[in-house]
Amino acid sequence: MIPRLTIIGVGLIGGSLARALKQAGHMGEVVGCSSNQANLQAAQELGVIDRFTTDIPAAVQGADVVLVAVPLGAMEACFRAMAGKLAPDTVITDAGSAKASVVATAQSAFGELPAGFVPGHPIAGTEQSGVQASFAELFRHRRVILTPLENSSHQAVETVREMWQAAGAFVDEMAVGHHDEVLAATSHLPHLLAYGLVDTLVTMDESEEIFRFAAGGFCDFTRIASSDPVVWRDICLANQGALLGVLERYQTDLEALTELVRKGDNEALGALFRRAKEARDRFIEQLEE
Amino acid sequence: MIPRLTIIGVGLIGGSLARALKQAGHMGEVVGCSSNQANLQAAQELGVIDRFTTDIPAAVQGADVVLVAVPLGAMEACFRAMAGKLAPDTVITDAGSAKASVVATAQSAFGELPAGFVPGHPIAGTEQSGVQASFAELFRHRRVILTPLENSSHQAVETVREMWQAAGAFVDEMAVGHHDEVLAATSHLPHLLAYGLVDTLVTMDESEEIFRFAAGGFCDFTRIASSDPVVWRDICLANQGALLGVLERYQTDLEALTELVRKGDNEALGALFRRAKEARDRFIEQLEE
Repeated sequence: MIPRLTIIGVGLIGGSLARALKQAGHMGEVVGCSSNQANLQAAQELGVIDRFTTDIPAAVQGADVVLVAVPLGAMEACFRAMAGKLAPDTVITDAGSAKASVVATAQSAFGELPAGFVPGHPIAGTEQSGVQASFAELFRHRRVILTPLENSSHQAVETVREMWQAAGAFVDEMAVGHHDEVLAATSHLPHLLAYGLVDTLVTMDESEEIFRFAAGGFCDFTRIASSDPVVWRDICLANQGALLGVLERYQTDLEALTELVRKGDNEALGALFRRAKEARDRFIEQLEE
Repeated sequence: MIPRLTIIGVGLIGGSLARALKQAGHMGEVVGCSSNQANLQAAQELGVIDRFTTDIPAAVQGADVVLVAVPLGAMEACFRAMAGKLAPDTVITDAGSAKASVVATAQSAFGELPAGFVPGHPIAGTEQSGVQASFAELFRHRRVILTPLENSSHQAVETVREMWQAAGAFVDEMAVGHHDEVLAATSHLPHLLAYGLVDTLVTMDESEEIFRFAAGGFCDFTRIASSDPVVWRDICLANQGALLGVLERYQTDLEALTELVRKGDNEALGALFRRAKEARDRFIEQLEE
C-alpha cells in the first residue's frame, strides 16, 4: 500500500497504473504532474488522479513513490528538477522502454544514484496514447521488468515490485544491458520496421491504391506504426546501440531471404516460412497459457 | 444465382465462399474437389459442400461456375486436369493472390484461354487455414479484385462479380500487372517481412527470452507469420518480379532509416515516424468508413 504516489507524465502508462492501483486499493492519494495543464485537468476529471501540479519539486514533496512515465527524451529534465528535492526514503521508478539511457541520465542528474531508485519497464501498451486511452487492466497478466542497480535498496525494489503486482502484472528482474538487447529485438526493431514499411508505401506512386486494397493482415502488421512517434523516436535513439545491432542482423537475414526469392528456391523458402510459423505459433500458445 | 458451383480446394477461402453463397441463397448445389479425401469428408460433415469427388474432370462436369482455390503452386495441375473437360459456357475463376502467374499457367494448360475464364482475388483471409476455419462472413465488406482478360466474355465477368457480391464483397476490376504490383506492396511484402523477422529472432541466442518478453505489439506485427507457409511461399515465388521490386525499394529505405538512427538524427527520425503514423491512421479511418 502506497500512501502517496506521484506520477510524472499522466498518459497511457501513468494513467493506467493510477487506475489499477486505485481499483486494487493499493494507494492512498495520487498526485499527477506534467508540463501540460490541460492534460492534468482531463486526468483529474476522469478520476485518474486526485490532484495535480505542474511543478515537479512540489509534486515529489512528501511522495512515498514517484513514477516517471514521460517519453525518454523528457527524462533528464524531470530528474534534474527532482534532484535535491526528494526525501531519503522516497522510492523512484520509471517506465522507460530502454534502461541504460535512463540510468545514465539519472546518474548525470542526481550525481550519486539514490538508493530508492529502481528502473522499471512495463511491457504493455497499445497504439493509443494519452490519459484518455488509459484503463485499469492494461498491466493485467503482462510482464514488468525491473533492472535494480547495485545501490538500489532491497526495500525500494520490493515496494516497486508490489506496486506492479497490485496492478496485476508479473514482475521479473534483469540486468540493464540484457534488458536493452532483448527489448531491441522484440519491441524496438518491430516498431522501426512498421514505421519504415508504412513510410515506404506512402511515398510510392500507387500509394493511394496500395492503402485502398490493404486488408486485415496489413492492418495488424502496421498497428504499431500508429504509436506515438515522439515516444518511439526517443526509444530508438535511447537504445541506439542494441537496436543497430539487431537491425544489422535483420538486414543481413533479409538479404539472404531476398536471394531465396530471386533464385526461386522453393524448398529453402518454404522451410524458412514453416520454421517461422512454428515459432510464432509456439509463442502464441505460451502467451495464452 | 449459380445452379451448380464446383470448388476445387475447399479450405479457408473456398469453404467461406460456399458458406456465404449458401446463406445468401445464391447457389443451388456445391461440389467440392481436392486431392485430400479427409478434408472433403470434413467439409461435407460441416455442411460446407453438398457432395465431393477427388476427380477433377468429374467435378467440373455440369458445373456452371468453377472456383479454383488451391495454393498457386497447385494451379497448373488443376488447370491441366480441367482442360478439354469444360462445357463452352462454364465460367472459371480462381482466388490466387498473384494474377500474372495464374494467367500464364492457364494459357499453358488450356492452350487458348477460355472465354469463360475470369481471374480473381478476394482480399480477405485470416492467419488460420483449412475448411475448419472457414466462415460465411469472411468476404463481407471486403474487396475482391477481378482482372478480366481480353477474351473474357462479358457474361462470365458479370457472373463472377455477382457471385462475390452475393458473398458480401465489393468488386473492383484491375489490369493483371497492376494488381500484382499493388498486392506485392500491400500484402506479399509484409508477409515476407513478418516471416523474416520471426526467423531472425528465432535464430538469436536469446530467442527464448525474446519471445517470453514480447508483448501485444509483437503479437499483432507477426500475426501474418502464422499464415500457411506453403500458400505464401507459392505467392512470393509466383509474384517474384513485383515482390523483388518493392523489396529492393524497402531495403534502400531501411538503409536510410538505419542511417538516421546511427547519426542520432532526432528531427528526421521523428518526422518519418510522424508521417508514417498519420498515413496509417488515415488508412484505418478509410477502412472503417
